[in-house]
Amino acid sequence: MQRYFINESLSDDHQITLPKDVAHHFVTVLRANEGDQCELVLNDHQAYQCTLIDVEHAIVQVQKQLKQNAELPLQVTLACGLPKTKDKPELIVQKGTELGVTEVIFFESDRSVSHWNNGKQNKKIARLQKIADGAAEQSHRNLIPQIKYLPNLATLLEEVQADKKVVAWEESAKQGETSRLAQMLNDSHPNEKWLAIFGPEGGLSEQEISQMKTYQVQPVGLGPRILRTETAPLYFMSAVSFATELNH
Amino acid sequence: MQRYFINESLSDDHQITLPKDVAHHFVTVLRANEGDQCELVLNDHQAYQCTLIDVEHAIVQVQKQLKQNAELPLQVTLACGLPKTKDKPELIVQKGTELGVTEVIFFESDRSVSHWNNGKQNKKIARLQKIADGAAEQSHRNLIPQIKYLPNLATLLEEVQADKKVVAWEESAKQGETSRLAQMLNDSHPNEKWLAIFGPEGGLSEQEISQMKTYQVQPVGLGPRILRTETAPLYFMSAVSFATELNH
Repeated sequence: MQRYFINESLSDDHQITLPKDVAHHFVTVLRANEGDQCELVLNDHQAYQCTLIDVEHAIVQVQKQLKQNAELPLQVTLACGLPKTKDKPELIVQKGTELGVTEVIFFESDRSVSHWNNGKQNKKIARLQKIADGAAEQSHRNLIPQIKYLPNLATLLEEVQADKKVVAWEESAKQGETSRLAQMLNDSHPNEKWLAIFGPEGGLSEQEISQMKTYQVQPVGLGPRILRTETAPLYFMSAVSFATELNH
Repeated sequence: MQRYFINESLSDDHQITLPKDVAHHFVTVLRANEGDQCELVLNDHQAYQCTLIDVEHAIVQVQKQLKQNAELPLQVTLACGLPKTKDKPELIVQKGTELGVTEVIFFESDRSVSHWNNGKQNKKIARLQKIADGAAEQSHRNLIPQIKYLPNLATLLEEVQADKKVVAWEESAKQGETSRLAQMLNDSHPNEKWLAIFGPEGGLSEQEISQMKTYQVQPVGLGPRILRTETAPLYFMSAVSFATELNH
């Protein structure tokens, strides 16, 4: 069923007038008629099953709260060194959203070839946020992940607080480190906040790796194959889901 | 280091004349000189470190066999109902290869909107095979996954033999099934052959689900979020790697 996010709380009469863009999509694009249903996620992050009762004014009646909650047990922030091409951040945001991410931060890493100057940043983040909005609706999330930009790793390490911090590091895998991520996930608790850092195409610099050590960021291997910069975060999100939702 | 797959066995003198396309890439594109190194995977599926000893004739000397083997413990065949758009099979093949797949089969599923007619099939598969070749080199695999096309699910079930067969089924997740995949992976043995089936955008039909029951294909849930048709196989491959390479 079609799901929309609406920044409103539940009113006493359980009726909601759909915002213009949602009304346009539901009534005009999907041609909904009176009696047709949709799911609304309100600002309490709960999903409600609703029925269209007034097509002209796009008013729905809330029928019941839906019990399913599709959120990951952990709150994961993915922090990705800016990749070279435009399609990679889009893929990370879209797939990361489907896989349950809470926040995606792009930062300019030492080896980032691409740079977002001040003029570009807001436009790029707005576009990526739209992709997250759409993917959150489609994957039936209860939260829309927030997309952000930070100028460098130092700012990221200073500003983002987390219970557990990891960095996907090729050298870690090469040195035969295979079980740290699994151990950390097996020991995790519901609602823990995780920060996972990924390098751009050329990887992270020595300086970045040592900067991270100061902030207790743990290097973890993601298996013996070399993953592209946009594949590693998706592997990580899948592993978090598998460990905490399927194998627990 | 640059890796190439070469369909040759190790000769007595440990010297190899690079095939034309590999020679072109290594010598002309990457401008390799005498003394420069590359990794070759020969038809024994072993990787060897090699040194260029003759630029003009593109001859390399094999130095030593590399011990790392980047292959998954399980042999996984992904079978995907033909998705709507061209970019989705490409994404599945590229990312699936990075994540360790052995074989990817596209089949026309009941709800596939896209159809590959006889004229198109070979061309499409050849293009996807090229993507697999490149991704196998880049991710430092020891095997190149094979890409295939089959006309329908019945043929797939008849032709593909496997020790364990699973289908990613939304209804399975909705019914609260969360642990079957984890259990099956925890009970798996090295070199087991797995077949994992995924529907196209509209999902699998009732008839297809009941066809699969006859062939002992187990429905498995991949978590509470609705994954797009191209995301589910990548989640699955990541889960296989996590369970068998990191959490074992």
